[in-house]
Amino acid sequence: MDREGIVLDPWGTSHVKDYRRLMEQFGIEPLEGELIERLPYKHRLVRRRIIFGHRDLEMILRAIEEGEEYAVMTGIKPSGEFHLGTKLTSEEFIYFLSLSPKARGFFAIADLEAYADNKIPLEESYRIALSNLMDMLALGLDPRRVYVYRQSQEMPVMQLAFIFSRSVTYNTLEAIYGPRPFGLYLSALVQAGDILNPQLPHHGGPKPTVVPVGADQDPHIRLTRDLARKYRGEFGFVPPAATYHKLLRDLTGQEKMSKRNPMGILYLTESLESARRKVMNAFTGGRATAEEQRRLGGEPEKCVIFVELLSTHFLEDDKQLEEWYWECKSGRMLCGECKARAWELIGAWLKRHQERRAKMRDLAERLLEEKTLS
Amino acid sequence: MDREGIVLDPWGTSHVKDYRRLMEQFGIEPLEGELIERLPYKHRLVRRRIIFGHRDLEMILRAIEEGEEYAVMTGIKPSGEFHLGTKLTSEEFIYFLSLSPKARGFFAIADLEAYADNKIPLEESYRIALSNLMDMLALGLDPRRVYVYRQSQEMPVMQLAFIFSRSVTYNTLEAIYGPRPFGLYLSALVQAGDILNPQLPHHGGPKPTVVPVGADQDPHIRLTRDLARKYRGEFGFVPPAATYHKLLRDLTGQEKMSKRNPMGILYLTESLESARRKVMNAFTGGRATAEEQRRLGGEPEKCVIFVELLSTHFLEDDKQLEEWYWECKSGRMLCGECKARAWELIGAWLKRHQERRAKMRDLAERLLEEKTLS
Repeated sequence: MDREGIVLDPWGTSHVKDYRRLMEQFGIEPLEGELIERLPYKHRLVRRRIIFGHRDLEMILRAIEEGEEYAVMTGIKPSGEFHLGTKLTSEEFIYFLSLSPKARGFFAIADLEAYADNKIPLEESYRIALSNLMDMLALGLDPRRVYVYRQSQEMPVMQLAFIFSRSVTYNTLEAIYGPRPFGLYLSALVQAGDILNPQLPHHGGPKPTVVPVGADQDPHIRLTRDLARKYRGEFGFVPPAATYHKLLRDLTGQEKMSKRNPMGILYLTESLESARRKVMNAFTGGRATAEEQRRLGGEPEKCVIFVELLSTHFLEDDKQLEEWYWECKSGRMLCGECKARAWELIGAWLKRHQERRAKMRDLAERLLEEKTLS
Repeated sequence: MDREGIVLDPWGTSHVKDYRRLMEQFGIEPLEGELIERLPYKHRLVRRRIIFGHRDLEMILRAIEEGEEYAVMTGIKPSGEFHLGTKLTSEEFIYFLSLSPKARGFFAIADLEAYADNKIPLEESYRIALSNLMDMLALGLDPRRVYVYRQSQEMPVMQLAFIFSRSVTYNTLEAIYGPRPFGLYLSALVQAGDILNPQLPHHGGPKPTVVPVGADQDPHIRLTRDLARKYRGEFGFVPPAATYHKLLRDLTGQEKMSKRNPMGILYLTESLESARRKVMNAFTGGRATAEEQRRLGGEPEKCVIFVELLSTHFLEDDKQLEEWYWECKSGRMLCGECKARAWELIGAWLKRHQERRAKMRDLAERLLEEKTLS
């Protein structure tokens, strides 16, 4: 390792916090200034720097400005219902699709991975993916602008992974991912295949592509960009652009979400009662006593309610968010009141989302069956 | 390596000659005695011990005797026209299919491998496979008994390779194959997928399977048998049986056939004129001078004409073969006469084969398109 020991881990054992160092070491550019100005619409995740960095976003901005086609790519391993983490990536996906009428979405459902790693049968993956897709449609995904596919049905992706396997070496894979079992390296090649799939002939050939990801997914992006360059002569690939969002804590303040800690995860399909209980028990920036908090003020920067729930997810209005911050910081508003107010927003959002998604079943089924409705 | 340095190499740099040691070290059983007796028909390759060993052939004999279904599996990488090497495997495939009306053939065309390794486009693979299939049909393949598929079209095989990748370790792969690039290990898993494909639900589930191979292919068989055991719980796999043939020299006496030495390879589609020239130039067991050969006799054991061409391929009659041996050994027949007589047999065979195969184009096309005509 010549990178001072920082190996980002997309499979979840490391946790990245030092984004500046990350950007310097791996060449992720900050998303700021002129680039943000050129975005036709500034999503709250952009305004609040939750999307903090990018690679080659310039290329996508040019495509938007010149009315040229580009692809937005994302994927899920269908292992459970959508939660705040998958909501985040979905919103980014939908956002980049909304920026131009020439954008085309590609949504990969990694059912083979779910089977190989979690023993989830392909039919069960189908059921889960259907539910996930209902959420994405409720979040605003335009079904006429997206190509939805299951890994188990998309042979060209497997073909690409197979081709890539011939030129990639252990050394490359180990330098990017650290020492890993054989199967995870293969998954990495399949994911590279997924990311480049929009550029294959059956999807109209090479085009700018952007992949919104969490900071921990950068190894996949780097590998894919290397492979895109290596196979440029053969396929004409354009190395994919990417945007990076910060990694968020779970509701209990843990760095990494885990199903073993269900109180940490807010599912989009959760009952309001259960959701309310989780919000009310979330980790806050409160002080030891009410007296102390009135005197010193709260610590909203540390607070899951403020950072993860309000700022990242549920409070759109920047001015209101700032007021909220100062009400806490000044000690005027204590945690009990804050949580009650936060729940009003969150509960209302969840209720409306669940009503919307309930109407999306038929559409999601058609999309899964037909892959595209355009 | 705990096997005293013997790592068989299915990708072609080692050459196995010491079959006894091979059998002892890796547990290949000799094909002899009672087992041969139980074969309903004794092919010349069996009678002459060119097929010298097996694993679990007992299981196939039982299926034959009890009228139970079994699979015969083979595959090719479509990289060129059929030659004597591919003729050998094809004949074995057809032979094991002929032993019972309940046998079903599976023929894999590794077009993805041909693309990844030899840059042969998939359409070109199709054209080559079509030509290869015409040869197999001319050699006697019953088109109603075989399922023919291209790797690029058979997603379940890729799925299996993907699943296997999760449980197989570097150590296992390195112990079997020696240190190898990542891509070749992946190919090995895909081949294991091909060999177990007949046992997947879409082909009717678990069944005895036999794979006729050259001795150098045993690593694939061992890996596949290990994987079959490992996934028995999940898929019900029966570890596949295999038969092994000796590795033959090319016409010029080289241990390993290579396209860089075209005089060494006799193609089944070759013009009679060109074929005749190659036979006439083949490596023989002749002595330095005619005088010496009359005095000492020839060395048919060393002779490509005798061992590879007559014994392995073109002289069916055992009694004639023995007479031929002694005519040479005694010094009565010199190489010129021998070659002329051999060419009569070979030329006649080639002519008849080429007439037959020319009539097989439509059938081969249907088989490639429809995969099965049963």
